[in-house]
Amino acid sequence: MIYFDNSATTKPCDEVIRVINEDLTGENWGNPGSLHKLGMNAAKAYEQALSDCASCLSCRDDELIFTSCGTESANTAIFGYLKANPRKGKTVITTRTEHKCTLETMEELVRLGYDVRYISVGKNGKPDLDELRSVLDDQVALMCFTHVNNESGSILPLEKIMDIRKDIAPDAAIYLDCVQSLGKLEINLKSMGVDMASFSGHKIHGIKGVGLLYIRHGVKVSPYILGGGQQNNMRSGTQSLPLAASMAVAMKEAQKARAGAYEEVSRINAYLREELTKRKATVNSPADALPFVLNVAFRNFQSETMLHCLEMYDIYISTVSACSSKSKKTSYVLEAMGIDRSISSNSVRLSFSRYNTMDEARSFVEKIDQIYDLYEVNVR
Amino acid sequence: MIYFDNSATTKPCDEVIRVINEDLTGENWGNPGSLHKLGMNAAKAYEQALSDCASCLSCRDDELIFTSCGTESANTAIFGYLKANPRKGKTVITTRTEHKCTLETMEELVRLGYDVRYISVGKNGKPDLDELRSVLDDQVALMCFTHVNNESGSILPLEKIMDIRKDIAPDAAIYLDCVQSLGKLEINLKSMGVDMASFSGHKIHGIKGVGLLYIRHGVKVSPYILGGGQQNNMRSGTQSLPLAASMAVAMKEAQKARAGAYEEVSRINAYLREELTKRKATVNSPADALPFVLNVAFRNFQSETMLHCLEMYDIYISTVSACSSKSKKTSYVLEAMGIDRSISSNSVRLSFSRYNTMDEARSFVEKIDQIYDLYEVNVR
Repeated sequence: MIYFDNSATTKPCDEVIRVINEDLTGENWGNPGSLHKLGMNAAKAYEQALSDCASCLSCRDDELIFTSCGTESANTAIFGYLKANPRKGKTVITTRTEHKCTLETMEELVRLGYDVRYISVGKNGKPDLDELRSVLDDQVALMCFTHVNNESGSILPLEKIMDIRKDIAPDAAIYLDCVQSLGKLEINLKSMGVDMASFSGHKIHGIKGVGLLYIRHGVKVSPYILGGGQQNNMRSGTQSLPLAASMAVAMKEAQKARAGAYEEVSRINAYLREELTKRKATVNSPADALPFVLNVAFRNFQSETMLHCLEMYDIYISTVSACSSKSKKTSYVLEAMGIDRSISSNSVRLSFSRYNTMDEARSFVEKIDQIYDLYEVNVR
Repeated sequence: MIYFDNSATTKPCDEVIRVINEDLTGENWGNPGSLHKLGMNAAKAYEQALSDCASCLSCRDDELIFTSCGTESANTAIFGYLKANPRKGKTVITTRTEHKCTLETMEELVRLGYDVRYISVGKNGKPDLDELRSVLDDQVALMCFTHVNNESGSILPLEKIMDIRKDIAPDAAIYLDCVQSLGKLEINLKSMGVDMASFSGHKIHGIKGVGLLYIRHGVKVSPYILGGGQQNNMRSGTQSLPLAASMAVAMKEAQKARAGAYEEVSRINAYLREELTKRKATVNSPADALPFVLNVAFRNFQSETMLHCLEMYDIYISTVSACSSKSKKTSYVLEAMGIDRSISSNSVRLSFSRYNTMDEARSFVEKIDQIYDLYEVNVR
């Protein structure tokens, strides 16, 4: 099997499975809210998991809350910030290439009377900074961007955006979706200076069902899920130690492997760009994209056809993001990047992880050749 | 160890641990949203888990959504129903003995301009039905009740409430918190006739981090967590097969063991009521409470003192609900039941599961005697 769909989800790694089992079977299955020793054990291990996550992200422990997923983190950040800061106004800036959890939240904001301003992105997937300068003003409460786009791999020019904010609207908060950058780029929240950021476990070989929300110290955000007041009243619901600990372990393992993985995946990406271009495929990912994502259009192969052809060889890729895949449309991300429909309808996403190898990349290209041969009558 | 704190959380059972491991390590770790075989495998297993849960609850598959916990289920049900049905009005009926996830949601509704009417409960923990009749009218959009109270074990007179609704305000929806009744009472959602109901995995020997929300077919509820449109657009966020499957297994195991467990726990409860009453303890749980919860006040022992005394013998109980325990107040549930503060400040909750035994109950009483002896100088 060759799994090149790591932006959709990843296989849980051994270390994650081990810690989940330890916490399900050991002495730490108590409710962290309980006053007795069993509860204290769980609470202590939970705080340690939080602290390990904070350490990986270079932030304070009390700047992180565990959530059930990146989507919940995004909802909490965006709705929670606007609710807690009504005097900052009702204007939000974003792009049309955000993940659905941001875009659907924006749709809801519009229904609630907010003014959502969408900035164009270029063919490189990056927001048009001149346009940002022109729409940004002191009425803007919040800007929502993505660190690394899940379909194109495009990396946000964060430092430039931070400079523009400083110049024009220093009070506008910034929420950053870091789901795809976590474990792949260095994330130092202290130096990045964003106000909120979201993370997910299952994109870094963790389990599905856990995420993180970063809220910079001093930034006011209203809780979204209300109840018993867990996690400093920021996210109610019984705290799950196995999920929290699995997040911490997934992050630590990703951090350990990061430099080596980046190098190997860069080789894989460069090799595939070269070989697939030779085979008349069009690379949609910009040249400076994160190497972990490679969006490419195979001439004469509809996205889904190629997906299923590769599946026959036990190779797994995706058309668009997994969240959107069942609606069977072409990618709204590629559309926003101005990529022609004739290309986007043939586009697929290859996405890599630290477990992928050059051998897999070579085998992938061989299989593409075989598929080309197989369909020769029809497509050449 | 004797664990009598099963209303706070339960130890994950072997069957749950096994299915989580199968889904973390097997062929089903794909994203259920992916179009390829790995995604399909996961989606198929996820649908099976949903179907198993629906079967345990006697409802349709499409009436259930997986959530991250009972608290999220409550937030979604209450906020989501009111949002989706603005013409039903802005009046909600509930009691002051609900779980915090309902009470805090009510507080938020009041801030949003809703009229929340709290009905008194009697010393038996049950809502005053005459008062319900007097405050219920066709302006009421929603009633929120709890099937089994987590602190007293009091069982809601649901059939009577359904009759009152039918008589006075057939359009008022009913949300029922079934977190404590799941696996202990038969729950047949079809015959119960409630509009929404919430459930949690970790109270029935599952993992923390998964819950269910039932929404009766035809009842309109707006989604609370917005994004990629998973689960028929009712709860966005990547679906977690290990968590969903663990919920299904926990429910099936609880159902299999239910009749036997009810019998054994009834014996334990009756024995403890008798022996502790002999020892001048006051039983706060009503006589017809669910036997799985026994709220009792030990004369001359503050709640926390008794908790820590028992902890020395490796016996675990709780003062109030785990969610509220760290605020260190006396129980708001007992207060609402009209129980004097001199009693409630000495009250603890013993809560049982199918894994508890009569031997443990006997041992518990012995330890109570030892504690009485130990403190004789001070307390007698």
